[in-house]
Amino acid sequence: MSNEDASKKLTIDFEPIGRRVKVSPGTSVLEAARLAGIELVAVCGGGATCGRCKVRMMSGSVSAITDTERSKLSEAEAKTGFRLACQTLLSEDSRIQIPPQSLTTPQRTQLEGEGDELPVTVEWKLASLALQPPSLDDLTADITRFRSGLLDAGFPKVELEAPVLTSLPEQLRKNHWEGRAALRSTGAQKYRVVSFLPPTVILVGMAVDIGTTKIAMYLVDLQNGCTLAKSGAMNPQISYGEDVISRIGYCNTHEDGRKVLQSVLVETLNAMIEENCQAAGIARDQLVEGVVVGNTVMHHLFGGFPVQQLGEAPYVAAVSEAVEIPAASIGLMMAPGAHIYLPPNIAGYVGGDHVAMLLATGAWNSKKNVIALDIGTNTEVCLVSEGKLYCCSCASGPAFEGAHIQAGMRAARGAIERVEIVNGNILVQSIGGLAPVGICGSGILDAVAEMVMAKVIDTRGSLRSGAPGVRARNDRQEFVLVTSEESGTENDIVITRSDVNQIQLAKAAIRAGVEVLLAEAKLEAVALDEFIVAGAFGTYLDLEHAVRIGMFPNLPLKRFKQVGNAAGSGAKQLLVSKERRRAADTIVAKMNYIELTTYRSFDQMYVQNMYL
Amino acid sequence: MSNEDASKKLTIDFEPIGRRVKVSPGTSVLEAARLAGIELVAVCGGGATCGRCKVRMMSGSVSAITDTERSKLSEAEAKTGFRLACQTLLSEDSRIQIPPQSLTTPQRTQLEGEGDELPVTVEWKLASLALQPPSLDDLTADITRFRSGLLDAGFPKVELEAPVLTSLPEQLRKNHWEGRAALRSTGAQKYRVVSFLPPTVILVGMAVDIGTTKIAMYLVDLQNGCTLAKSGAMNPQISYGEDVISRIGYCNTHEDGRKVLQSVLVETLNAMIEENCQAAGIARDQLVEGVVVGNTVMHHLFGGFPVQQLGEAPYVAAVSEAVEIPAASIGLMMAPGAHIYLPPNIAGYVGGDHVAMLLATGAWNSKKNVIALDIGTNTEVCLVSEGKLYCCSCASGPAFEGAHIQAGMRAARGAIERVEIVNGNILVQSIGGLAPVGICGSGILDAVAEMVMAKVIDTRGSLRSGAPGVRARNDRQEFVLVTSEESGTENDIVITRSDVNQIQLAKAAIRAGVEVLLAEAKLEAVALDEFIVAGAFGTYLDLEHAVRIGMFPNLPLKRFKQVGNAAGSGAKQLLVSKERRRAADTIVAKMNYIELTTYRSFDQMYVQNMYL
Repeated sequence: MSNEDASKKLTIDFEPIGRRVKVSPGTSVLEAARLAGIELVAVCGGGATCGRCKVRMMSGSVSAITDTERSKLSEAEAKTGFRLACQTLLSEDSRIQIPPQSLTTPQRTQLEGEGDELPVTVEWKLASLALQPPSLDDLTADITRFRSGLLDAGFPKVELEAPVLTSLPEQLRKNHWEGRAALRSTGAQKYRVVSFLPPTVILVGMAVDIGTTKIAMYLVDLQNGCTLAKSGAMNPQISYGEDVISRIGYCNTHEDGRKVLQSVLVETLNAMIEENCQAAGIARDQLVEGVVVGNTVMHHLFGGFPVQQLGEAPYVAAVSEAVEIPAASIGLMMAPGAHIYLPPNIAGYVGGDHVAMLLATGAWNSKKNVIALDIGTNTEVCLVSEGKLYCCSCASGPAFEGAHIQAGMRAARGAIERVEIVNGNILVQSIGGLAPVGICGSGILDAVAEMVMAKVIDTRGSLRSGAPGVRARNDRQEFVLVTSEESGTENDIVITRSDVNQIQLAKAAIRAGVEVLLAEAKLEAVALDEFIVAGAFGTYLDLEHAVRIGMFPNLPLKRFKQVGNAAGSGAKQLLVSKERRRAADTIVAKMNYIELTTYRSFDQMYVQNMYL
Repeated sequence: MSNEDASKKLTIDFEPIGRRVKVSPGTSVLEAARLAGIELVAVCGGGATCGRCKVRMMSGSVSAITDTERSKLSEAEAKTGFRLACQTLLSEDSRIQIPPQSLTTPQRTQLEGEGDELPVTVEWKLASLALQPPSLDDLTADITRFRSGLLDAGFPKVELEAPVLTSLPEQLRKNHWEGRAALRSTGAQKYRVVSFLPPTVILVGMAVDIGTTKIAMYLVDLQNGCTLAKSGAMNPQISYGEDVISRIGYCNTHEDGRKVLQSVLVETLNAMIEENCQAAGIARDQLVEGVVVGNTVMHHLFGGFPVQQLGEAPYVAAVSEAVEIPAASIGLMMAPGAHIYLPPNIAGYVGGDHVAMLLATGAWNSKKNVIALDIGTNTEVCLVSEGKLYCCSCASGPAFEGAHIQAGMRAARGAIERVEIVNGNILVQSIGGLAPVGICGSGILDAVAEMVMAKVIDTRGSLRSGAPGVRARNDRQEFVLVTSEESGTENDIVITRSDVNQIQLAKAAIRAGVEVLLAEAKLEAVALDEFIVAGAFGTYLDLEHAVRIGMFPNLPLKRFKQVGNAAGSGAKQLLVSKERRRAADTIVAKMNYIELTTYRSFDQMYVQNMYL
């Protein structure tokens, strides 16, 4: 290979972990992943014998597939671009998807959230049945036999939906015609049959928070409301678009786009169901109901509703009312008659996850002046004051997810999550205490705030040449956090002017949103009694730093509350409590939604808040 | 090729047409089809340029696929065994499926049936809406906007099922927010939204009779009950099993067997929907409701219900009550909220098609003594007498479908359908007046009856050597109907002792069933006022011959009524008339089902009726 070739570096993007690395042509995908700080399972050490390091090529041409690889891949895998990372040599800029099972350590997902476990008030009945099996003397059809058993048990009129009709005959035989029918109340003395179960097992519900990036799932005991198992996973739709806009774009440009995005999501949820059922020691037949919360685009993609109109002004939701979807109708592997409740959406960019968060934090009916927000690519902000509710959605961008940041990555192992500058010395802390490989949202926020305090940058975000850590590279100033010698990886981890600007845009959008709501309620920031910060990033961010850079108003720190994944907690509450479902409707009915794109003074507030 | 090779003949079976032919190795599939009397579309005359003669290899090895063929086949076709008949050379016994579009002429399907067109009493409402489109001043979600339009139109509470929620936003936009909502009454003042349509179009319903072999579909104007379009097709499940037992077997031995059989069926129904919608000049969005009738196995496979228990004693139905299935839930392309009504089944081997036939013929509430039967592989027989209903199912076998008969075939062009023996001369008539290629059910029945009358066979079914047309071949006697010289095909068309025996078994089963019901009702055959023969075979059979061989009791011919596809007519009635749906429930509730397998004197009656 000539020197010229060797010096040409390829850009390799790893999804869904969101890590980018530059490597020389001819580097294997396994090696590139190592350089990016991603630990792939490679039990055999890269000899193509264990077949564990499966990755999927999304774009970029690579070395031809070998017979050895073929023997380790299923036909379906080979057809859909799967390769063994150790055998695949890179020759072009590439995008590579890493399935969760090929990762040694999962990404950090926020599962815990504030919100009480509520008593179960959603009504369930268990009807004990001991039926006579069919015989030549009694040719009664299965469903008729089952109905007459329920009649004897005091349930004269029950509804059986198609998926129950198709599954019940097998459930009855599997349980030798004896067991308990799980009946869901659907009104006064009316019930829907959901499952037929062995006599001793409990009923379990599933609460899910589908984020644009991450998914959190909880299994809840429907007898007492206790959480039995939980897990997190990446949203597999990331491979079709980083953010909601690009996913809407995918649907607009692919005839079956909505179906594809729905089915990859359902596939991941089914894998999570399997995992959590195992952890909780229950069968899928016991999963009798679900609640799914998410932003409006996630809600629509999950439910199969059109999303095109969410990508164009005036950005209206197809569906905003609370809906119930039969789990079987979208292929979710639960009890045959299980339904999924989706809480109402507030607007095209304020979804049911925000409603769930307001429920879990109690913000929705607080007597105080409360701001509650969840930071993401879109940041939903709600203000509660004197019984009135106001909310808006700010286009804060993906900087806090690590995207559009040169050394950015999601909050996975090896990501810098804390930065301090003490007497000109730069101190960093990475997730898992590993050698740093990039920087995640809380780390960037810290870095920028510390750079402001250390006067490394000015109020407009420009790097001061000569300040500690600042160096010129390619005619531009950059701030070196970690050198490649220190980290042992290929590249220095630096913060650029452009990175700082991304943070300015993000924080200005959030702050302007807060200010608009305060103006609407004719309130000064100082009058806020509580400032609730929800979501994974919100949990890990340093509040002092967030105030320092002006993202949040300057309030005493004790008024802030970091509540974790409150949307997930809200989903759990909605699963067990019918009062919470009524409250969700109340929230949406009372909510004053402020559309910022047409708000008179928004642009001005936005620009004002760009300063650091 | 050596003489030995050339003399080795291959057995080639063509599905779904049911024709078998013997050919030499190296014969092309196109040529073999010609020899079997099947006309494939081959515009180019077999030069692989038109690509029209597509067939699907189900079993048997053939010549390798050529590049020319590949260029004419889609990837999916090539993967699933499709070939061009003209390019594929046979080298083994093979089973070959001929898709309908590769046939020049369709098989004869019985579409007409007795039964009045009833007034429409199923309640439909059309709500005219002219909605304001969303704007930045009015961000109301689509579904909320739609609901408020319905409220203004006087429908305060409507149900919207998931498939309607997913489709309505697009329907609203396509119609520029103006049109009519189709609302289906679901009880007192309650409605379900089914579709949103342009202001001028009508509502249309779909009635389907799914037979084990054939499918008949009708589109019905729901304003006046008139039939707008109709068509017939072969049941594509034939490729997975000739009869219901072998299809149950397929489901028992294939994990996704039920899904496969359901989806090939739905695929064919969707193609028929497309064809009929075009013929009627309507859009699929206008197809707001369906009725599907079939035997219990067809019912279960259509609805996705388990069938294993239908193949084992005591042969109970999973579902016998009337059910409604959302069309979208099984992939039927109709209006988004369309439901399919399936009438109740009577027993494991007497399905809703029998109920529909009883409705259409009026037999169910006749004041006379009436037998009504539908002949098939299973023959369902019903006796109505003094307000009581009795029925049974006879295992009459597939002989009348042309199966298990040496020269047998289904009722397609070139099949012998009439046989007469006049003064020792054998006269035959074939469907379409073509050179005969085989013999179908009505032809076999004729032949056997005429052979009895001409004393070619005795009462036990043995061929008399020396009788006209009888010859010895391979130590066995056979009766020559048409020689190969006369027909121009490879083989003589003959009737063997075994063929005659198949007819004896079939007719004995049917007659014994009739006798059992008469015995149950304590009635003599002569007391029957009406003897109704339904179904395609029943339409074409010669009644005098059927009486002659003892299949039917010896009644004056005018008491017999051949009513064609009365099940299809009954399906149409169930589509428009809520009174008919109530009557269907009444029939099933009142029906005395007699299980012949355990009936005390059945075997004796069966043996007695074997004589000719």
